[in-house]
Amino acid sequence: MTLKQRDKNHIWHPLTQHKLHPETIAITKAKGCMLFDEDDNEYIDAIASWYTCMYGHCNPYITEKVADQMRVLDQVVFSGFTHEPAVKLSEALIDILPNNQNKLFFSDNGSTSVEIGIKMALQYHFNRGEKRKVLIAFEDGFHGDTFGAMSVSGLSVYNGPFEDFFLDVKRIPTPNGDNHDTILNQLKLLATTHKIAGFVYEPLVQGAAAMKMHNADGLNKILNFCNSQNIITVADEVMTGFGKTGKHFASDHLATKPDIMCLSKALTGGLLPMAITSCSQDIYDAFYSDDLSKALFHGHTYSANPLSCTAALAGIDLLKSDDIRNNIIRIIASHQEFGKHIQNHPKVASIRQTGIIFALDLDIEMERYGNLRDKLFQFFMKNGVFLRPLGNTIYIQAPYVISKEQLQKVYQIVEDALEII
Amino acid sequence: MTLKQRDKNHIWHPLTQHKLHPETIAITKAKGCMLFDEDDNEYIDAIASWYTCMYGHCNPYITEKVADQMRVLDQVVFSGFTHEPAVKLSEALIDILPNNQNKLFFSDNGSTSVEIGIKMALQYHFNRGEKRKVLIAFEDGFHGDTFGAMSVSGLSVYNGPFEDFFLDVKRIPTPNGDNHDTILNQLKLLATTHKIAGFVYEPLVQGAAAMKMHNADGLNKILNFCNSQNIITVADEVMTGFGKTGKHFASDHLATKPDIMCLSKALTGGLLPMAITSCSQDIYDAFYSDDLSKALFHGHTYSANPLSCTAALAGIDLLKSDDIRNNIIRIIASHQEFGKHIQNHPKVASIRQTGIIFALDLDIEMERYGNLRDKLFQFFMKNGVFLRPLGNTIYIQAPYVISKEQLQKVYQIVEDALEII
Repeated sequence: MTLKQRDKNHIWHPLTQHKLHPETIAITKAKGCMLFDEDDNEYIDAIASWYTCMYGHCNPYITEKVADQMRVLDQVVFSGFTHEPAVKLSEALIDILPNNQNKLFFSDNGSTSVEIGIKMALQYHFNRGEKRKVLIAFEDGFHGDTFGAMSVSGLSVYNGPFEDFFLDVKRIPTPNGDNHDTILNQLKLLATTHKIAGFVYEPLVQGAAAMKMHNADGLNKILNFCNSQNIITVADEVMTGFGKTGKHFASDHLATKPDIMCLSKALTGGLLPMAITSCSQDIYDAFYSDDLSKALFHGHTYSANPLSCTAALAGIDLLKSDDIRNNIIRIIASHQEFGKHIQNHPKVASIRQTGIIFALDLDIEMERYGNLRDKLFQFFMKNGVFLRPLGNTIYIQAPYVISKEQLQKVYQIVEDALEII
Repeated sequence: MTLKQRDKNHIWHPLTQHKLHPETIAITKAKGCMLFDEDDNEYIDAIASWYTCMYGHCNPYITEKVADQMRVLDQVVFSGFTHEPAVKLSEALIDILPNNQNKLFFSDNGSTSVEIGIKMALQYHFNRGEKRKVLIAFEDGFHGDTFGAMSVSGLSVYNGPFEDFFLDVKRIPTPNGDNHDTILNQLKLLATTHKIAGFVYEPLVQGAAAMKMHNADGLNKILNFCNSQNIITVADEVMTGFGKTGKHFASDHLATKPDIMCLSKALTGGLLPMAITSCSQDIYDAFYSDDLSKALFHGHTYSANPLSCTAALAGIDLLKSDDIRNNIIRIIASHQEFGKHIQNHPKVASIRQTGIIFALDLDIEMERYGNLRDKLFQFFMKNGVFLRPLGNTIYIQAPYVISKEQLQKVYQIVEDALEII
């Protein structure tokens, strides 16, 4: 039996209606930008396996370090103990994070990093004797699938069975250059009628909303208002972090820095699960006390797993290397050129780009996971490119190591796809 | 600077009040049952790094397979794709799980596995056209630190800042042999006054409650009642799974099997983060539909990470090996002997044991993380044994590969500790 046949017996895949999408593709190998399946097909991984393996699959610089670490120290309780991979990673990460970030709290995935960010924001006020219970988030934001993370996510299409159990979250539109005064007025009103603990947001690019991009100046104004009201700002950089926007973090494009940042995905270069919630000294200080109960009583068993820390540390080395920096500059320029070429195509409604993230909207109505979307996906795969359209948006977020030729092939297939719809 | 000094700059440790507990121990190496620190001390890891590395630290049978996998396929999106490590793991795991378990949903830690279990239970009813909004859980249960998982946890001492945001959960006592009729009457009343979606429980042993153990017969009666009301039963076997109770799973000791099971910790043999929520075909079928929105729209980026799957598969090989099975039998008998010896000690209030999990309560009042607890912890560490008392409970949950001599040393230090309090 093939792997894809055996898969059907016992595996329930994420985000999948198995009756409508019974087939899977069995990947047997990955190297650099390429995926290989059990039927001897190969694909360019043009979304870097959900934006993780930015330095290429099975990058030996990372895997050799992890293999070495695995022989020395695999795992140890991270309460009361520490280890070299965590310490080195903390130093390397603080070095590249915005200047106001000073402490790191470890967990295992983007959802938990956001849960921790929310808990930090709520307990920050609680520890200072103030009960603030309301959160603010952007419309169409996505922050994960656990109950706290779902609560701040505005993509509510599939939250039906759960929405009675959510935290109290008020939504504001993303800033578009024209609506800043309206948003600020809305915020001012919210701040007078509610006790607002925090603002959770994806800076500059909303990933699951199909790479929706918003205005940095408007976001700065929102963050400044939050600061003025001591509303804790929580930047979810799970998708945008580690070079995607052309700088190390999306927050580097903004004058006002967040109080808290959530990191995962490319953090470990696509090798292993891990997440980090970083914060300013001010946040940390609100928990530092002679009163035991003011601590953050949150802890996952594999927090700061030494192998994941080792992968992350190697990833940061690569991120800072001339090689990767030059690749990022090359991809940004290449996308700009493709954008100019494709934007006037009659089937293209609009294009947008932030750093190496490129998206185009088709001039056609499509369901998020509907038939036309499936037709597009199958066309891409048949032509050897793994792209995962979201509704009528086609987006590219390839590994930094994608070659000029591979990138041209991706563009060509995207252009060809416009002919089949 | 030493690692433990550098650690203080940027790391915020889980479950830690840094002002009261500023010091960490920097572990540099781990092998088998032993941990080694940067000051050349060594410790027997008598709680298997939070019950994970049951086959010993850096077990070469596991690490070599993971090192091989790392060169072939590191990570790929698990929606629409599959791979050999996940398929093989699914077959091996279904083979050892209770017979009614048939589908596996992957995530990254115990908290998320419980969140998924809760979401399956709620959406199961929702998809069948019934809104059931209340959950049942045991007093003093612990199921994780995300909002959904916190909601079902009954250890509320430190939930203060968050409890306004919890799901609606009703608590019942654990069955003790005498209170079964009372519990069943309470359940019957709850079922007439509320629409109960599910029951979330740690079977037989409540870990974070300090290895509290309860009556299997009473739990069976509760599960049978749940079945009669179509209340979905969710067994949190994150701590009890993979041999700890003397059988593969705690649920193997019960006649009535759960609808859903949550697995993590020892799942990957202590090498890497991963969790799985398994379920019966009946649960899965409630989501299998021509209606897209009946799917479980939950997904973590690193779901079914090939390296974690490889570690888990190797772990199951070891669990089934004669070597490990014999070790488990030996440790169970050894604990029984130690229990007989220590139970009449004047400072011991009571002892209890389930499989390789041994606990004794001191005849003294202690705070969960208080001074006396710290004194005990330091005594153990000074004498080369890593044990982590919880309040007035000292418990042992050592790796299966602990030698006879190492185990005797652990017992001796526990006995010596009774003299210092």
